[in-house]
Amino acid sequence: MRYVLQIGYDGTAFSGSQRQPGARTVQGVVEGAAADIFGVTTAVAFSGRTDAGVHAAGQICHLDGQTSVPPHKLREVFNRLLPPDVRVLASAAAPAGFDCTRGAKKKTYCYRMYAAPAAHPLLERYAVRVTPPPDLNAMRSAARLTVGEHDFAAFRASGSSAKTSVRTLYAVDISQKSVWGMPMWELRVTGNGFLYNMVRILAGELCAIGQGRAEERSLTEAFIVKERALLDKTMPARGLILERVDYGLLLFEEEAQ
Amino acid sequence: MRYVLQIGYDGTAFSGSQRQPGARTVQGVVEGAAADIFGVTTAVAFSGRTDAGVHAAGQICHLDGQTSVPPHKLREVFNRLLPPDVRVLASAAAPAGFDCTRGAKKKTYCYRMYAAPAAHPLLERYAVRVTPPPDLNAMRSAARLTVGEHDFAAFRASGSSAKTSVRTLYAVDISQKSVWGMPMWELRVTGNGFLYNMVRILAGELCAIGQGRAEERSLTEAFIVKERALLDKTMPARGLILERVDYGLLLFEEEAQ
Repeated sequence: MRYVLQIGYDGTAFSGSQRQPGARTVQGVVEGAAADIFGVTTAVAFSGRTDAGVHAAGQICHLDGQTSVPPHKLREVFNRLLPPDVRVLASAAAPAGFDCTRGAKKKTYCYRMYAAPAAHPLLERYAVRVTPPPDLNAMRSAARLTVGEHDFAAFRASGSSAKTSVRTLYAVDISQKSVWGMPMWELRVTGNGFLYNMVRILAGELCAIGQGRAEERSLTEAFIVKERALLDKTMPARGLILERVDYGLLLFEEEAQ
Repeated sequence: MRYVLQIGYDGTAFSGSQRQPGARTVQGVVEGAAADIFGVTTAVAFSGRTDAGVHAAGQICHLDGQTSVPPHKLREVFNRLLPPDVRVLASAAAPAGFDCTRGAKKKTYCYRMYAAPAAHPLLERYAVRVTPPPDLNAMRSAARLTVGEHDFAAFRASGSSAKTSVRTLYAVDISQKSVWGMPMWELRVTGNGFLYNMVRILAGELCAIGQGRAEERSLTEAFIVKERALLDKTMPARGLILERVDYGLLLFEEEAQ
């Protein structure tokens, strides 16, 4: 029987999501709990990997096993075994033929930036301080240029092994709010897939445009010239949160997100 | 010369704000940095103490010393010496006769509660999970009964040594928002002073009313009968943030909050 899980994690103390020998990873920790529950070594597949330090509110996983625990109760059984920085937020029997990796149609990431006179102790864990404060309208105007199908080759860290660098972004939105009196910008990007470091490079370039250090046309140039060097630095992992993975299916009766 | 500091801290790893032998406290850490800067043992006064695990975005401190560093630059000098979980957000020369403890006219605290299927790894550090979800309107209606001058003797932990338990609340507001898809309630209380655990007891009782476990009149009864046992449990420290202390003065040229 195949089960599907929605999990959330604080990435601070993990060496990324993907299992690695000798490192504390989200997959390693979840597979450790699964082995205890099912009594045998159990592989847990992820919708995709997240880097060291990246957080998730809506990562989706699947696993195969046999247990008398009702599928929607697996959540509680996992949470009794998992450490507090990773939690199963929903569990269910997977639909027929479900594969959390190959079936993912859309993913939404959030990148959080704030301005403050110093690295703020209450914000720094899930956001990155930027200085000077970027202009919201300049970032929004530039963000609109990235919506649609483009070759994102310039928005990819070296060492990325994806076959094609063409991706479609369905929505790229930036909101501004005030958190503990400090301005916070949330960049929210929904696409059919993402290259290695793509959101963190996009966040860095939009911030540079908002700060007046780069021009809007750098984005359209990057789509044509396809060189990483045209764009600003990759932003730190701790500002990035995998918010949602969409399969065009209602996976959980009570949607946890 | 007297200096005034606005500081923020993540209370998770502190045994409260107040200096204690053999414990890691906010005052101990800030006084350690002050001793390095001024070259002598330097007492740092706080507007008031916060308990173990309570956070602050706008705690106000003062200290006396002599240095050639311009007052508004003291912030940076402190931040080079302080650990990442405490930061000076603003520094200035104190106005004549300023005392951060005796001069505090109003304080604002925020208490954060959320609902989720499990303790959420991205929310649990600065908020407390409550189940079932409380009703916003029931909490708001009850909150209005607490505004004004009342005897808060029932809203005080045993062992509190304040001379009088009469306090005035100027505003008690509750907002609801969605964070990572989970409902989050922020109780914001502004008053002329607070008894030991007063906000945490008030948050617990408002939550109980919102959940239908207590009735609105429990609050007015508690003002009259003055017994702690009439009210629900004290909520955990990690949901409480000292947001602002007001002196009726503009302390910092660039207000950091």
